[in-house]
Amino acid sequence: MPSFSRLVRFLARDGCTYYGDAILPRGVTDISKARQARIVKGDIFGKHDVTDQVADIRMLLAPLAPEDVRTVRCLGLNYAAHAKESKMPIPQYPVVFYKPATSLSGPTDPIPIHPLAQQGTGLDYECELVAVIGRACSDVPEAQALDYVLGYAVGNDVSHRDWQLKLGGGQWSLGKGFDGWAPFGPGIVSRELLPDPQTLAIKTRLNGRVMQESTTADMIFSVRKTIAFLSQGTTLLPGDVIFTGTPQGVGMGRNPQVWLKDGDVVEVELEGVGTCTNTVEFSRARDAKI
Amino acid sequence: MPSFSRLVRFLARDGCTYYGDAILPRGVTDISKARQARIVKGDIFGKHDVTDQVADIRMLLAPLAPEDVRTVRCLGLNYAAHAKESKMPIPQYPVVFYKPATSLSGPTDPIPIHPLAQQGTGLDYECELVAVIGRACSDVPEAQALDYVLGYAVGNDVSHRDWQLKLGGGQWSLGKGFDGWAPFGPGIVSRELLPDPQTLAIKTRLNGRVMQESTTADMIFSVRKTIAFLSQGTTLLPGDVIFTGTPQGVGMGRNPQVWLKDGDVVEVELEGVGTCTNTVEFSRARDAKI
Repeated sequence: MPSFSRLVRFLARDGCTYYGDAILPRGVTDISKARQARIVKGDIFGKHDVTDQVADIRMLLAPLAPEDVRTVRCLGLNYAAHAKESKMPIPQYPVVFYKPATSLSGPTDPIPIHPLAQQGTGLDYECELVAVIGRACSDVPEAQALDYVLGYAVGNDVSHRDWQLKLGGGQWSLGKGFDGWAPFGPGIVSRELLPDPQTLAIKTRLNGRVMQESTTADMIFSVRKTIAFLSQGTTLLPGDVIFTGTPQGVGMGRNPQVWLKDGDVVEVELEGVGTCTNTVEFSRARDAKI
Repeated sequence: MPSFSRLVRFLARDGCTYYGDAILPRGVTDISKARQARIVKGDIFGKHDVTDQVADIRMLLAPLAPEDVRTVRCLGLNYAAHAKESKMPIPQYPVVFYKPATSLSGPTDPIPIHPLAQQGTGLDYECELVAVIGRACSDVPEAQALDYVLGYAVGNDVSHRDWQLKLGGGQWSLGKGFDGWAPFGPGIVSRELLPDPQTLAIKTRLNGRVMQESTTADMIFSVRKTIAFLSQGTTLLPGDVIFTGTPQGVGMGRNPQVWLKDGDVVEVELEGVGTCTNTVEFSRARDAKI
């Protein structure tokens, strides 16, 4: 049972990186506003303590350290209106694809666009509720599924539609798996604080303009159903991360279509969790080899 | 630079699990025949020693410990004759999907078939050359790509065609990702011993009958090209595992089609590496929840 309320990982003023329990002013729930945290010591998935040691946050990092991440699963087409705008059928079962752990990045990290993904069109954003598994499970019934959740974050399933849909032989992972294409955070809110993940407002702003605005109530497969489904014959591990799909309003589904450009600022926001604000950076990437 | 020739992980007679360098009789190259190994101490991806301590092998295990595995990527349709039998076009770029690390298992482990995958038809085998990344790389040119390989194994990309192709919304990972659906081994042969991975005979036997028989020379995208392609804007890490696709002769492509049944024994074999022999077990799995 985690003892933290809002797990963050951060660079502190002392130059060290810590896990911490974010301290927020009264009435504030957006973890990105946290300036201090109580340092968490020990195994975030097991025995750990929220200490009395308070540290100043210089920068929030991806809320899981790379060595604490296992598998990153994602759902496609998990909001009916998004399936419709994508001109895809409503799925009968969850549509599952993967991103590599190297795609994860933090709530203020730039999104590097490799030259390969600067070609063609289709650079897009997707705000998503992200569930983090806290305890190993397999064949877990729906009724118990949320017991295995460490907590919830918000993430951006950055996608290149050409590579996702046209050039990858129909398999979506390639066009979604580049380094830094899954910013998430700003922290992980414990399931005690968010007992019902299906009532949360979720949105994307692009350069300040609201592009996606929905609620997790519209998910076709709830977090509960998703975990029960995914765990069938498949062990989910502590540190597994599940991106649960995006609502309508992605760039691909708009008329005219809207593609991310160099310098664009994308904010993804989940009620009760907070905001990730990431800038699209074409210059960070090196020469394409293909 | 690894100092081992044939890395194995094994349960020894003393009841402990070790990494080791397999000792083979003169003229034998199939690692599954090894009865002893020199114990390897240290970090298999970094500083390590092949010690003089020889241990008896009680059982070969998956050649990478779970904590040493990062991301498991797989190529689809990477042999022209297999693309043809699958009635799919020859891919212009590598077709990439993922399996979770929990799907990996050892060279003699049973393949557990969850009730979900006992329904419908389409339980199939796929012998594949498996490349293991030994050093981190990104944007690596083809000419240097093999320098980042720790070594090669053979694996079975076990697949349920209904879940892969019909029920997963077109995304292949779900029908290939169950626990234990990626047996590999019997060890990892260093790239010094196999400087050219594109000249190796590869085959599958089902209950002793040869079902797939080809050569890695027929791969559309060589290991070298595959690593160069996958590393574009994407960091490959030590412990990343790449299943490089299967040749013709899978059960789905035969006339009449052949599906794996409870108790079937599947052997996948790669020249210079050895054989994995795995038994299909329906009884190991628990009740399906969907």
